[in-house]
Amino acid sequence: MDALVIHAAGDLRVEEVETPPVGAGQMRVRVRCGGICGSDLHYYRHGGFGTVRVREPMVLGHEIAGVIEEVGSAVDGYRAGDRIAISPSRPCGLCRYCQQGLQNHCLDMRYYGSAMRMPHVQGAFRQQIVVEAAQAHRLADHVSDAEGALAEPLAVALHAVNRAGPLLGKHVLVTGCGPIGALAVIAARRAGATRIVVTDVGAAPLRTAERIGADVAIDMAAQPDGLGPYAADKGRFDVLFEASGNAQALTGAFDALRPRGIVVQLGLGGEMTLPMNSVVAKEFDLRGAFRFHAEFATAVELLNQRLVDVRPLISATLPYRDAARAFALAADRSQAMKVVLSFD
Amino acid sequence: MDALVIHAAGDLRVEEVETPPVGAGQMRVRVRCGGICGSDLHYYRHGGFGTVRVREPMVLGHEIAGVIEEVGSAVDGYRAGDRIAISPSRPCGLCRYCQQGLQNHCLDMRYYGSAMRMPHVQGAFRQQIVVEAAQAHRLADHVSDAEGALAEPLAVALHAVNRAGPLLGKHVLVTGCGPIGALAVIAARRAGATRIVVTDVGAAPLRTAERIGADVAIDMAAQPDGLGPYAADKGRFDVLFEASGNAQALTGAFDALRPRGIVVQLGLGGEMTLPMNSVVAKEFDLRGAFRFHAEFATAVELLNQRLVDVRPLISATLPYRDAARAFALAADRSQAMKVVLSFD
Amino acid sequence: MDALVIHAAGDLRVEEVETPPVGAGQMRVRVRCGGICGSDLHYYRHGGFGTVRVREPMVLGHEIAGVIEEVGSAVDGYRAGDRIAISPSRPCGLCRYCQQGLQNHCLDMRYYGSAMRMPHVQGAFRQQIVVEAAQAHRLADHVSDAEGALAEPLAVALHAVNRAGPLLGKHVLVTGCGPIGALAVIAARRAGATRIVVTDVGAAPLRTAERIGADVAIDMAAQPDGLGPYAADKGRFDVLFEASGNAQALTGAFDALRPRGIVVQLGLGGEMTLPMNSVVAKEFDLRGAFRFHAEFATAVELLNQRLVDVRPLISATLPYRDAARAFALAADRSQAMKVVLSFD
Amino acid sequence: MDALVIHAAGDLRVEEVETPPVGAGQMRVRVRCGGICGSDLHYYRHGGFGTVRVREPMVLGHEIAGVIEEVGSAVDGYRAGDRIAISPSRPCGLCRYCQQGLQNHCLDMRYYGSAMRMPHVQGAFRQQIVVEAAQAHRLADHVSDAEGALAEPLAVALHAVNRAGPLLGKHVLVTGCGPIGALAVIAARRAGATRIVVTDVGAAPLRTAERIGADVAIDMAAQPDGLGPYAADKGRFDVLFEASGNAQALTGAFDALRPRGIVVQLGLGGEMTLPMNSVVAKEFDLRGAFRFHAEFATAVELLNQRLVDVRPLISATLPYRDAARAFALAADRSQAMKVVLSFD
Repeated sequence: MDALVIHAAGDLRVEEVETPPVGAGQMRVRVRCGGICGSDLHYYRHGGFGTVRVREPMVLGHEIAGVIEEVGSAVDGYRAGDRIAISPSRPCGLCRYCQQGLQNHCLDMRYYGSAMRMPHVQGAFRQQIVVEAAQAHRLADHVSDAEGALAEPLAVALHAVNRAGPLLGKHVLVTGCGPIGALAVIAARRAGATRIVVTDVGAAPLRTAERIGADVAIDMAAQPDGLGPYAADKGRFDVLFEASGNAQALTGAFDALRPRGIVVQLGLGGEMTLPMNSVVAKEFDLRGAFRFHAEFATAVELLNQRLVDVRPLISATLPYRDAARAFALAADRSQAMKVVLSFD
Repeated sequence: MDALVIHAAGDLRVEEVETPPVGAGQMRVRVRCGGICGSDLHYYRHGGFGTVRVREPMVLGHEIAGVIEEVGSAVDGYRAGDRIAISPSRPCGLCRYCQQGLQNHCLDMRYYGSAMRMPHVQGAFRQQIVVEAAQAHRLADHVSDAEGALAEPLAVALHAVNRAGPLLGKHVLVTGCGPIGALAVIAARRAGATRIVVTDVGAAPLRTAERIGADVAIDMAAQPDGLGPYAADKGRFDVLFEASGNAQALTGAFDALRPRGIVVQLGLGGEMTLPMNSVVAKEFDLRGAFRFHAEFATAVELLNQRLVDVRPLISATLPYRDAARAFALAADRSQAMKVVLSFD
Repeated sequence: MDALVIHAAGDLRVEEVETPPVGAGQMRVRVRCGGICGSDLHYYRHGGFGTVRVREPMVLGHEIAGVIEEVGSAVDGYRAGDRIAISPSRPCGLCRYCQQGLQNHCLDMRYYGSAMRMPHVQGAFRQQIVVEAAQAHRLADHVSDAEGALAEPLAVALHAVNRAGPLLGKHVLVTGCGPIGALAVIAARRAGATRIVVTDVGAAPLRTAERIGADVAIDMAAQPDGLGPYAADKGRFDVLFEASGNAQALTGAFDALRPRGIVVQLGLGGEMTLPMNSVVAKEFDLRGAFRFHAEFATAVELLNQRLVDVRPLISATLPYRDAARAFALAADRSQAMKVVLSFD
Repeated sequence: MDALVIHAAGDLRVEEVETPPVGAGQMRVRVRCGGICGSDLHYYRHGGFGTVRVREPMVLGHEIAGVIEEVGSAVDGYRAGDRIAISPSRPCGLCRYCQQGLQNHCLDMRYYGSAMRMPHVQGAFRQQIVVEAAQAHRLADHVSDAEGALAEPLAVALHAVNRAGPLLGKHVLVTGCGPIGALAVIAARRAGATRIVVTDVGAAPLRTAERIGADVAIDMAAQPDGLGPYAADKGRFDVLFEASGNAQALTGAFDALRPRGIVVQLGLGGEMTLPMNSVVAKEFDLRGAFRFHAEFATAVELLNQRLVDVRPLISATLPYRDAARAFALAADRSQAMKVVLSFD
């Protein structure tokens, strides 16, 4: 069966890979859809990000859905033919953080398609994969495979919302409206935010933000002082989801954020210089949000019950053999939000 | 102008009352709609509840909406003709609890239509009323007066949800599906609960529960063991909103509530006998929820943005001169959820 | 080697038991001291409590300290001769609650000396025991074996304090001053409570309460209205630790507990009838506290650093062969707080 | 009566000031002691900090204690001769933040001795002052005036601890051991931290840290990798109090701080460049802490009950007429921790 293997920046190949036998607690899955994530793009375009570099061939991909082909002898509740979203997160379950319910900080995490450790953890952009039963989450009939592939980034956004605490009645700012920012809008609304303002510097993502229910979408390139009106009384937003990874987006929002305001930092962007005296004097609460754990199940539940709708974010579905075109499209913010690969 | 004045159990009269002059920070409002609350019903049918008794004539009512007739000289942002929902909550602003942001525990609260203190605090079932500017919350054009009157009980439900903490992805049980239980369903869904099960002993309220989005509605009269399937693994519900005031409803849910489950007690029902060893061994967290403060503004925001829809709960709107009929209807759970009086 | 085996109410025998071989991750310990807990007393005097009954012979005991005799091949950081306190809590580590960091709610808990499940989990009142390495916590030289045996009930009290949330600057009421109530005083003080009032109906425990630092000790038998002065402004205590298991102690404190006051229920006492309207109107937060997990390590750390002193609670140390006398003494609140058995 | 008035950097004068009459809710106080704070030092040495500059003559000082000379007609519970610590914080009580219990973010705060607003808020380094009754907190006989003057910085440290959440059993790192860092050590210990490590680059403050109970004091100038051993398993500290205002101290601690670790930023130091990817990946929670509100009363309670001891921090007490010498001493970290002025 085929897989998409990254060898170095710009060197992404379709290669044949073996599918291992199915263990008792496992299942073999025919992968149908895989969403291209920002990290996949970084591996493809730059060979990695920060100190994380591709040092050996690695199958990319961690946003996937498929259909079960075979189920191990010890697996309950699933059978061949079931359609599932697959969690790419495989914590050890035993370390001090797993035992504290903080599986996303597992000391021995094997997250699909990650070059953080050596040997790299192989990913899931492949036609066939064997997964642990705990990774499987059944999709309702009315949820498409492509939507199922979005369970993973939706889980990231839900985790960010959980990091923020209760949002019912809160006024929320989202800076940066790529796929994660857009999903943060959807998740924040689902959690009860009454006012959601989104900023970006691109017209296309802001149009999407409006389509998915943002109350106001501000193009900071056109209106650099677009947040000015929200600075009254020391700031009107209760919570900021920073999804751009851009220091200016973060610090530019400080005047509009109320004292004790919560900042959830999602975007990765290396070093940022912050006016710490504002953080102190306004007693901001700046929280990192990284991946997810229980939120994957929640993501699938929300999709299955149509309590969220991620379909407006799916820009295109392309065959995996057109990966180069798909990755190019995914990198073009004026054209695409989320690009999905089909592995059929 | 007319008002509905309770003199004793069963003795509710239409009487003329004076409207005081409008102070600088006040506004005079033509009341349009008033919702009949369970406490109004208790005053009418039993002359009070518990140790709270009607000891002098008292205008009933605290769920009201109307249109501004005149605005005081120091009031900003409102003018005659604006339609508003009116918060019946008037904390002192100065006591230790107000200064802690716990205005619902104000040491000098003057809540409309309450016989808790002597002299009683006169209510708002009257054609005209003078209110403080802080009590006014503007209604959007597409929100009806009757919906505006429901901002108050919706605020009660939102407060209960806030007491529960974050609900995103949570499995929620609501016991008792009167107006407050039904609004708890709506509020819990708005806050992101993924699964909502409702129990009651009446077919009509359970039908309403389904109409407003409950996933499962269980008639405990017909299926006394209806919660049995939720007892697996020490219990499947994360949160219980107890809105019946019935001890059996509360304790009957304990097996279905997970360890560390949160119980928000909304229903008033006097003494209850609890199996405290279960509370201890499962480490439940049983929290009272009483009235609201900031949630009134949130309620109006949610109504204005159509982020919640309370219209399925409005059973009938009757003229205030038919109060006896309206109160009888409000007391009949097989016929009515929320009955609204019109003061036009 | 000997063990103390309960056969039925009043039938506690010294019997010989086998010590199993030491597994790779285990250690064999020479038990030195074992504290007699209220549940040991219940087994001895009544054959159980509530629905939990002794149905087969069971070694009692779960508050123990000893010295390591042999260490398994896979154990790091310990060696023969080390003195340790032993946690009696053995969660499975794998179930849904363990994976959420809620090990005290483990679906497959094997807690020493408990008749909750069948076969019963054998206890630790025995001269020799084989434990998992994770159960061992090294004692500092200056901490006696008897103090080490108190790590377990101290962990219970610390867990209760953790359930209460931050106590720095809080005013705390403790109702019931048996060993757990007394340890709650110590733990609450360690966590920063500025005012601690204790109630009981016995003079001796109240004297101990004063000795360990309670600011006020009230004998409710002598002064039934002793909490009256604390009822001003809707109540002056922020937190109540209910350690008596007596409904009157709990509800009698409600007037003295401020709105939003937190009640941590520790005492087990079967059914209690509560004025739920007070719970609702004052928005109390009533939380069960059951056993502990991470707090065992904290207890030993606090003992090792002399940040708490439990010595005033140790009433007597008696040889295990005098168990009948020791249990009689432990049951006499006028004579004893905590009675420790010596297994030398 | 005399006051210490700053006119510009280096220009601090003893000048006569008028004492206003005592209003009904006020009291006139003979100031006895005033602690020199870092902000007083900044005004004296640099004429301000950041954008805050002395633009008109201003009485310095906000850490004071004294004895009541006269009490207004409406003041209960105090009389002439009472010794008090005086809170310098005067929030308006009415604004949105005061009504949320966030008085330290008051929109109209008048904090003693602050040039943040124009006209400046005059301070309390004066022989006589008229204060609101709410500012007064009675000192126990055994608490000295100088200790009373430390109630204010102690309140700052207590507020920081409250911002951190529960500390019972936590491992805490304090970076920077000036007066605020040292008080953070004291406050963290009082709140139950079991392990407290302090870093600084000066030998004298580190000696003080040890004297007040820090478990380990690391001189980062001598041992730049002193925190290395705490980096195991992704970091061993639960909480970091950053009291140096130095970016390197903050970011240098990141490896030693566990995932989900809490950073409370107390030190003011302008812009800091942070490795945001670490904040995200380890999900740190970085919280500003600014002044205090309820903690002032807690500080005095703790002093009155000898639950904390701040005496080791008082380096010297000098007459206010020797202000120049006192300020020079206060600025010399090798000589002084906290310098107190006597106004007798």
